[in-house]
Amino acid sequence: MTAKVLIAGSWRDADSVGTFQATNPNTNEKLAADFPISSWADCDAALDAAQQAAREMRKLGPEPIAKFLECYADKIEAAKDALVEAAHAETGLPKSPRLADGELPRTSGQLRAAATSCRSGDWALATIDTAAGIRSCYEPLGPVCVFGPNNFPFAFGSVSGGDFAAAIAAGNPVIGKANSSHPETTRLFAELALAAAEETAMPRAIVQLIYRTGHADGERLVSDPRVGATGYTGSRSAGLKLKAAADAAGKPIYLELSSVNPVVLLPGALAARGTEIVDEFLTSALMGTGQFCTNPGVVLAIAGEQTDQFIESVKERFGAAPAGTLLSPAVAVSLKSSVQQLCDFGAKLLVGGGEVEAGRCAMANTLLTASGKQFLGDPEGFQTEAFGNASLIVVADDLDELCNVIASLEGNLTGCIYSDPAGGDDAAYEQVAFELTPKVGRVLNDKMPTGVAVSAAMNHGGPFPATGHPGFTAVGVPGSLLRFAKLTSFDNVRPGRLPVLLADKNPTGTTPRRIDGVWTTGDVG
Amino acid sequence: MTAKVLIAGSWRDADSVGTFQATNPNTNEKLAADFPISSWADCDAALDAAQQAAREMRKLGPEPIAKFLECYADKIEAAKDALVEAAHAETGLPKSPRLADGELPRTSGQLRAAATSCRSGDWALATIDTAAGIRSCYEPLGPVCVFGPNNFPFAFGSVSGGDFAAAIAAGNPVIGKANSSHPETTRLFAELALAAAEETAMPRAIVQLIYRTGHADGERLVSDPRVGATGYTGSRSAGLKLKAAADAAGKPIYLELSSVNPVVLLPGALAARGTEIVDEFLTSALMGTGQFCTNPGVVLAIAGEQTDQFIESVKERFGAAPAGTLLSPAVAVSLKSSVQQLCDFGAKLLVGGGEVEAGRCAMANTLLTASGKQFLGDPEGFQTEAFGNASLIVVADDLDELCNVIASLEGNLTGCIYSDPAGGDDAAYEQVAFELTPKVGRVLNDKMPTGVAVSAAMNHGGPFPATGHPGFTAVGVPGSLLRFAKLTSFDNVRPGRLPVLLADKNPTGTTPRRIDGVWTTGDVG
Repeated sequence: MTAKVLIAGSWRDADSVGTFQATNPNTNEKLAADFPISSWADCDAALDAAQQAAREMRKLGPEPIAKFLECYADKIEAAKDALVEAAHAETGLPKSPRLADGELPRTSGQLRAAATSCRSGDWALATIDTAAGIRSCYEPLGPVCVFGPNNFPFAFGSVSGGDFAAAIAAGNPVIGKANSSHPETTRLFAELALAAAEETAMPRAIVQLIYRTGHADGERLVSDPRVGATGYTGSRSAGLKLKAAADAAGKPIYLELSSVNPVVLLPGALAARGTEIVDEFLTSALMGTGQFCTNPGVVLAIAGEQTDQFIESVKERFGAAPAGTLLSPAVAVSLKSSVQQLCDFGAKLLVGGGEVEAGRCAMANTLLTASGKQFLGDPEGFQTEAFGNASLIVVADDLDELCNVIASLEGNLTGCIYSDPAGGDDAAYEQVAFELTPKVGRVLNDKMPTGVAVSAAMNHGGPFPATGHPGFTAVGVPGSLLRFAKLTSFDNVRPGRLPVLLADKNPTGTTPRRIDGVWTTGDVG
Repeated sequence: MTAKVLIAGSWRDADSVGTFQATNPNTNEKLAADFPISSWADCDAALDAAQQAAREMRKLGPEPIAKFLECYADKIEAAKDALVEAAHAETGLPKSPRLADGELPRTSGQLRAAATSCRSGDWALATIDTAAGIRSCYEPLGPVCVFGPNNFPFAFGSVSGGDFAAAIAAGNPVIGKANSSHPETTRLFAELALAAAEETAMPRAIVQLIYRTGHADGERLVSDPRVGATGYTGSRSAGLKLKAAADAAGKPIYLELSSVNPVVLLPGALAARGTEIVDEFLTSALMGTGQFCTNPGVVLAIAGEQTDQFIESVKERFGAAPAGTLLSPAVAVSLKSSVQQLCDFGAKLLVGGGEVEAGRCAMANTLLTASGKQFLGDPEGFQTEAFGNASLIVVADDLDELCNVIASLEGNLTGCIYSDPAGGDDAAYEQVAFELTPKVGRVLNDKMPTGVAVSAAMNHGGPFPATGHPGFTAVGVPGSLLRFAKLTSFDNVRPGRLPVLLADKNPTGTTPRRIDGVWTTGDVG
């Protein structure tokens, strides 16, 4: 029995060019269910249905869309056990607290936050210029393709996660492309979403699901004229191919590709609370077996006794800590290869690097070091992302070399700076922050990068190649909705014909609008 | 004597691979001044200097940058006569009112509006989440390359126009690439900008100017690691090449490429005020000899007596109106070729199409018609932009065919709908607007598209291929600044280290900030 795809509101046999199975990374065994690899015909049918759904959604307006999101969130919570069971089998992520108590409530919470923003319209930056007779806001862009990653089967899932929530809340239907490592989990979500669509009388094609396509069909999908935009989270190589295709067609594509998330440890921080920092680093670096987009992959410090001690402690703790299970055989292969590459570039392996007990996807917790000079000799090589439970500590001779290393970094999602709580590092902080800030989407102080709060002030984004555009965030409402929207001005448009968000009367009484330069929740005039 | 380029704060001999001269389109004679075609060495030197200037500007903060913009605006007004003289010689645009009384005050006004936004920080969407301890805002992105168009030597000029003003106000230095049709005008602006930089103690490389490069060097420039982003206004073919290069490097590029700006005339509008609409159309279509980005290139109407009469009147008036001068020999060649293409596709030439008196760049005012069926048979062909004083009227059999024609349109900057003032067309309006709105950046009622107000609610943008991204506007403050900025979150960052915009105290007392979900000009707490 091969699973059915969800196209145009029905679960139907795929027009299949092959099948695949997921693997249980805790046992290395293939899971029983077969999933289809769709041909272009499936994509084409999904695009047609999505285009029709997009038209219907434009007529419905925000309230029923918000209800759909809330209904879906309720259903996810009600189906918690089945979702956790499926995701645990497919990803090896612990059932509790990770899946059941962390990721699942985050997922339903994101959907509800998106619903609130959808209903309020606060995301659309409604702007009214009464003197010029012009009004503008952001509006839905059209069908959104979502390619979800392997590491968050719920919260970044292609039909459940942040991109899905943002795309729907902005008024667009979603065509989900499941991550091949957890197709059954994604299928369960799509069932719940379809049930929510039925219950709230939404177009059934508000959510569609295919599991996998050939590369060429994926590229064709994101560049199709019927598509509004694409959200992609995954490997840099696959993402860049999709980006090239979408860019050539003028279709926005938002990518979250890779990031080593530099953590700078200034001497005063290590002196004041080195032991705590070891604890914090350990937790952050090995959390989820290091498979977080914001995993601290590179630590930057200045040579000295405190740094030696930090390295020694981390080495011991990495060696002593149990090696978690990786998400899939592919992740294990890629991690081993990245660690090998770093060694080939000259990094020194302090601990780990090898197998743990057989029978599951895993690698020993791995710590490498390199000098600042080595890093500066091949910045690109030393920024190879080792996705998983491996980190590289780069030791610079002095502050100037540290700053040079930072200046040689690519774009990253995050950059952390630990400094003396008493202010002893303040001059160094200024130099370091000046170099680091332009390179990252989020600057942190005295705090590790994992843990991406769903906040209006969050930027889960950053300069290329961390993402495809430095101006957008993938997490946080209302900002994340703007990725899936077009700006539209209404110039001299008669009052009865304006979007409700731009009418004289504030549609909710609480929606913030910029009227003649002033943000207000009031009416015009 | 070959003109010097402005690099790293000095006027110096270009590292030149050739020279070119502009042409006076009113006489078809080459102008005396020689301008250099720069090699990569000039671009490279400009990039180094821009990178350094960007670092200095980040340290300066908004106040001196605002002062620079205001000082530059003053100098532009003081140099009005020379600027108008140069631009008239190079573009053939009338000295008055167009250049002296229209475009020049618009240009200085844009610079002052950008200064106001820079000082206020209202563009940066400062967001503070006190509970999560996260604060975010938009920050400068790095050096911006600006490629200005031929048709607005002041207001969209590479070192004077909207992109320049927005890039600088967002805190970035600009490398201007002059439009080859008005290099002397651009040189004069760069002199004024440099003088303003000196007077306000800004880094001298805040503005740099090269006149022309080879295509490969242009592509290398926009994709260089030292570049933050690029603004380009010009032809679709050159723009798409730059886009491909910038996209591949992950560098934002904002393009304004081409647009036929459909104008829909519903029957009730023609019945109620057909004569006025002829007047309005004539003014808009022939203004600036039709060389506006928002020129109404395609009129869409439904077959009937009123439409016939409209066409007849426009034909007469086009025939009777003097043919303006085109911007350059290249524009004249391209216009003739586009009109010929439209005829080849089957459009009927009603008037014009041929030469006027010799000795200047011009073509007779040109009107073509086609049926809705013809248009639907080759939508791409019939959307060939005829940049200049030519328009195409498409006559659909009925409302359904009209809507099909609209549904077949590419992305455009604007879409106008004229309808019965008494409401007789309201049902048709709803159908037409539903199809048209997703295709355009700005919807207008009962008004022609030319005249792009500098308003916070303006969107001078639209879906591809009108621009490169549907979420951004090239005109209007504060929105246009966001193109040249990166979003940055500050997570747990110590109070004294935050950007002033994100400090507890509102930096100006009037800057709007979103604090815990509410837009306010107050302080935190």
